[in-house]
Amino acid sequence: MATGEPPVPETRVLAIASHVVSGHVGNKIAVFAMQSLGCDVAALNTVQFSNHTGYRQWKGTRTSADEIWALYEGLKQSYLDNFDMMLSGYVPGAASVQVVGHIAEELRERTASAPGDFFWVLDPVMGDNGKLYVADDVAPAYKKLLRFADVILPNQFEAELLSGVKINSMETLEEAIQVLHEHFQVPHVVITSVSLSHPDHPAGSLSVIGSSRTSTGRARTFKIVFPAIDCYFSGTGDMFGALMVVRMREAVTNAPDAAELLQRRAWLSDDSVAAIDLPLARAAEKVLASMNEVLTKTCEGMKVEMQRAEATLDRRGVVGDEARKTALHLLKSGAAELRLPRNVQSLRSPSVSFRAVKM
Amino acid sequence: MATGEPPVPETRVLAIASHVVSGHVGNKIAVFAMQSLGCDVAALNTVQFSNHTGYRQWKGTRTSADEIWALYEGLKQSYLDNFDMMLSGYVPGAASVQVVGHIAEELRERTASAPGDFFWVLDPVMGDNGKLYVADDVAPAYKKLLRFADVILPNQFEAELLSGVKINSMETLEEAIQVLHEHFQVPHVVITSVSLSHPDHPAGSLSVIGSSRTSTGRARTFKIVFPAIDCYFSGTGDMFGALMVVRMREAVTNAPDAAELLQRRAWLSDDSVAAIDLPLARAAEKVLASMNEVLTKTCEGMKVEMQRAEATLDRRGVVGDEARKTALHLLKSGAAELRLPRNVQSLRSPSVSFRAVKM
Repeated sequence: MATGEPPVPETRVLAIASHVVSGHVGNKIAVFAMQSLGCDVAALNTVQFSNHTGYRQWKGTRTSADEIWALYEGLKQSYLDNFDMMLSGYVPGAASVQVVGHIAEELRERTASAPGDFFWVLDPVMGDNGKLYVADDVAPAYKKLLRFADVILPNQFEAELLSGVKINSMETLEEAIQVLHEHFQVPHVVITSVSLSHPDHPAGSLSVIGSSRTSTGRARTFKIVFPAIDCYFSGTGDMFGALMVVRMREAVTNAPDAAELLQRRAWLSDDSVAAIDLPLARAAEKVLASMNEVLTKTCEGMKVEMQRAEATLDRRGVVGDEARKTALHLLKSGAAELRLPRNVQSLRSPSVSFRAVKM
Repeated sequence: MATGEPPVPETRVLAIASHVVSGHVGNKIAVFAMQSLGCDVAALNTVQFSNHTGYRQWKGTRTSADEIWALYEGLKQSYLDNFDMMLSGYVPGAASVQVVGHIAEELRERTASAPGDFFWVLDPVMGDNGKLYVADDVAPAYKKLLRFADVILPNQFEAELLSGVKINSMETLEEAIQVLHEHFQVPHVVITSVSLSHPDHPAGSLSVIGSSRTSTGRARTFKIVFPAIDCYFSGTGDMFGALMVVRMREAVTNAPDAAELLQRRAWLSDDSVAAIDLPLARAAEKVLASMNEVLTKTCEGMKVEMQRAEATLDRRGVVGDEARKTALHLLKSGAAELRLPRNVQSLRSPSVSFRAVKM
């Protein structure tokens, strides 16, 4: 890719997710990532918080389900609902999840005669590592609207919640994907950050498992193994989703059968295309390459910043063990914010690469 | 500038302005512009509207003065108020303007022992072309906090409102600037889009007038003449402000006396520096070069899009003269949205150039 040349044709994306004033999670990272890769992004913010909740303290307000719908109606009444793609991330509460589903349904209907003209990347944000951070009625709300999605990006825990399959091995993981394809009719599934132990996973590595269904609903599963980075980040899922929007469109546009693919619902490849040759695999490879570079740089920067943390606390006059512990957590959270604006090159043309392999 | 190399050192900016879901005004354009040039931007949104008000219809909500203050307190309590610069744009109502002033005052106090460590670019958004689009108590609220600002960016009408000087000639314009420097103690003033007739203004040109005060409060006034573009845009003032943040810091960082300048309140140059040698002049030149390229591309794109407008109305089934007139205005507003994401190169390294001349 020539520097400065966007990797995708003009693409108008509706991004529905949280907004934080400071830092880089939700729409705050997704909008910039997609804009940097040349997309025209409509950003519908589901909250406005001072910072992400990982700091354990924040201020701000949520956008209600009615307000989300009103904003969408505002777009519609002014002919601003001409979206090619949609990305949805954190949505506060089941009522709002339902509204997001209605929006997707309407946008899907608008393109009924050209089903390839709308593509929804759904990140069903509900929890991680066995811990739910939304209300109990959110998972059922998501299940009802999965059939409108084109790609879903659950983590391992969210994949369990949606599929009802307890994932504790590669076999059960594949089973969960099969349920999502067949029972919930989801065309593409990517399960992010899988940490199951397996012979071909070197220690300290993670993997992403992806699959595009065949015409008979069978999974075509690939795996991409990449090194884990020893830092705790927030916003990685949001960045993953934003980059998937762009790289999926790019991969399909560059596929040998692009002309046909782009006319089909979910841009689904012919059954003859093998798992590792899927556009979904090409997209995920590029996304992971960018993520690896940005996370590596963030981790380096964070370590440098944390060397000054004790001095900062002294200067700020923070005394007492408990107060210093709390303050240190806040400084660490700030230092771990993804470093995107100064690493745009890693988004545009990452130099590392990871390859999809067959499961 | 090497491609990809940010023009400024790491810079953390607090941007307080409006947010629109679709399109490019307020923070929606300012945040991306500053991020693209390498800044870490905290975006505090004063409204969330579906689209800008130039469409004549929109939906959404305002952030109250209390909510703006709460978000700022949220930043403060988590050590996230370490801003190098601040940019403020549209703020809904006098109470919120007052709150923004308090925020600036606090950030200014925090750096009392190093007055060059905080720099506020204030765009006092109130109206244009003789028409006020805020409540009557907003102008007095702005007047009270001008002394905390480093650069203000009023248009001709706003400069009149703040200075109390009726501007109808180059002489009265200079008088208004003198009042802002001397009575209101504003270090730098840039008056955007001046359209006074004057012998050295070719037909179809506009100018920007800037000045940095001397130690005795005298104006040092320069002028940059540039071609007017025959399209109606929204968000140009917001883009101007965002680029001024970056280019002012760049110009000061690159000045021969950078080390001293960066320690002074408002980075004010020695009295010996002539108007056209001011960092403010260098900054404004670069800003106008980027703006000219982005606006030219936007205008070209808009014309192409509007050729399809009638067909779009037919397809959408819009019938009746009045309905078509309204719909055409909406389509035109959409087509005139600034085209930034695909023209980042014009932000980073514009190829045209305009030069500051002495008044």
